[in-house]
Amino acid sequence: MSTAPQVENSSFQPPSWKTILEAHARIAPRIHRTPVLTSASIDAMTGARVYFKCDNFQKTGSFKIRGATNAIFSLSNAEAGHGFVTLSSGNHGAAVARAAAWRGVPAYIVMPKNAPAVKARAIEAYGGRITFCEPKMSSRAEVAARVQAETGAYLIHPYDDDRIIAGQATAAKELLEEVGDLNAVFAPVSGGGLLSGTCLGAKGIRTDVRIFGCEPERADDAHRSLTTGTLQSLESSDTIADGLRASLAPRTFAILRKNVESILLVSEEEIISTARLIWERMKIIIEPSSAVAVAPLLKPSIVSSLNFMNRPDGGAPKLGVILSGGNVDLSSLPWIR
Amino acid sequence: MSTAPQVENSSFQPPSWKTILEAHARIAPRIHRTPVLTSASIDAMTGARVYFKCDNFQKTGSFKIRGATNAIFSLSNAEAGHGFVTLSSGNHGAAVARAAAWRGVPAYIVMPKNAPAVKARAIEAYGGRITFCEPKMSSRAEVAARVQAETGAYLIHPYDDDRIIAGQATAAKELLEEVGDLNAVFAPVSGGGLLSGTCLGAKGIRTDVRIFGCEPERADDAHRSLTTGTLQSLESSDTIADGLRASLAPRTFAILRKNVESILLVSEEEIISTARLIWERMKIIIEPSSAVAVAPLLKPSIVSSLNFMNRPDGGAPKLGVILSGGNVDLSSLPWIR
Repeated sequence: MSTAPQVENSSFQPPSWKTILEAHARIAPRIHRTPVLTSASIDAMTGARVYFKCDNFQKTGSFKIRGATNAIFSLSNAEAGHGFVTLSSGNHGAAVARAAAWRGVPAYIVMPKNAPAVKARAIEAYGGRITFCEPKMSSRAEVAARVQAETGAYLIHPYDDDRIIAGQATAAKELLEEVGDLNAVFAPVSGGGLLSGTCLGAKGIRTDVRIFGCEPERADDAHRSLTTGTLQSLESSDTIADGLRASLAPRTFAILRKNVESILLVSEEEIISTARLIWERMKIIIEPSSAVAVAPLLKPSIVSSLNFMNRPDGGAPKLGVILSGGNVDLSSLPWIR
Repeated sequence: MSTAPQVENSSFQPPSWKTILEAHARIAPRIHRTPVLTSASIDAMTGARVYFKCDNFQKTGSFKIRGATNAIFSLSNAEAGHGFVTLSSGNHGAAVARAAAWRGVPAYIVMPKNAPAVKARAIEAYGGRITFCEPKMSSRAEVAARVQAETGAYLIHPYDDDRIIAGQATAAKELLEEVGDLNAVFAPVSGGGLLSGTCLGAKGIRTDVRIFGCEPERADDAHRSLTTGTLQSLESSDTIADGLRASLAPRTFAILRKNVESILLVSEEEIISTARLIWERMKIIIEPSSAVAVAPLLKPSIVSSLNFMNRPDGGAPKLGVILSGGNVDLSSLPWIR
């Protein structure tokens, strides 16, 4: 039985820039270099120039394919031979299923039974084999261990893995390669794989770019962890941002503590109204988890408190947002009752 | 009182390539050069390589701003001084309102009372002044004439105008500039402004590209006109493709007869299921009128009968689709009851 590397101490070394460059070269032939979109009406509403990195258009509908592809194609044939197992609320599962199919091996996905049905269907469409579990983190880990023991599959942790973090870093790297003078980048935070990668990918190109995590009030473990300085966890959450119900791991917490300016919290109502606004004004479909990273920009108090206004060019601040995914159930939208 | 040029005979000369180049130069500073997107899953479903020209991302949410901006900025201050009046089911009205505001003059929009409320709100947001009329074409023309008489505004016809056609031609021109070896381009047809422009803009770059119009069965005047060789009209239509309820004019009919290979009809059910498919797979919002131009590609009988398969590179046919707009009422989607 193969296992993900276990790290027993808290002095993690984050993936190096060289590791991120290698990850990008490894995954580039298989993933999209997603477009960066702007919107005059969103700019007017925020008082900023906002650059949206559209990983909702990414293969499998989310950024998760970046990390999963990097991890899965980093492994030897011996390690990969019995397939892969993972825990996922949906998007990471679809990504592992997709990348495992590219490698020609099975994917076993353990997902909480409150995950959206549309995400389960996507996993099955890529050939993934689903085992449902209770929404609690403890149940997920237990079921994943059982599946792993039964199959001999290699565990691809959704975020507590440097290969995953290095893969997710490529989204911000691409964004900064396209818009080099961003003042700040906003990304959602759940287990912290995307946000850790955003720190490393963005600061690898522009050291003084400021990074903000964005999190639902109803799943605020990252906010509590960074304000208390001690890793906090979340046993379960019912936030509509279904991709953001996990908790930080020691590895991602260590990277975020060093690199993230703060974690901004948003309410369920703000998530829903922001998702609808982006659909309506930008004509793109983002999932609630992505709206979490846009919602803070629409609060005047937050934008003014961030004090980005001293640009050498005298213009409005330039803010990047990672739109993490676009997988929603179109037959049931939160603003239609 | 100013009026649009009246043409009394049927031997129309279409706008020249030079006119289209001038239109493009005139509008380029004000409009988006919209992206061209592709989708591996749509390619797999159609057996073709499909290139989507995303004018759903255009200013005001549709291609209509191209023609309206060209017409409105072609006019002298004397002609434009009393503002503009037009008839529109929504998108052309929003475009005229937006372009009139750029010129600093009023816009009077006559729209049928069965047009989507969201389109009326967009017109008002751009400062347009709306007069509602009955859905019949005869009612529209009568009300527009009255508003024109009262205000002295200049009539910007939604399609029976070379300046409009030359503006709409820039969408296909941009598409062919980006993907030069398309075998065919598909566009929706209503009054024929976009489809006429698509013929001229595409064939100006690649003479042997084949052009197909796509039309709802429930608003099939263009199909009847091209098959009978005589201009047919539509008194009214209730198709869900709310942008496609108008009839060809002599000017657009003349261009289509010479340049369009055929008009492909699609059912209401096909329009709805295709719109949902594009939302789900491409994560972009298109309105039903745009789905009309995608639906034929999903019918195996049509794709095989088109016989595009003899490419010199041996690959699948390359097909362009003009996605005309993305203005939908998100609070009421046709697949949610």
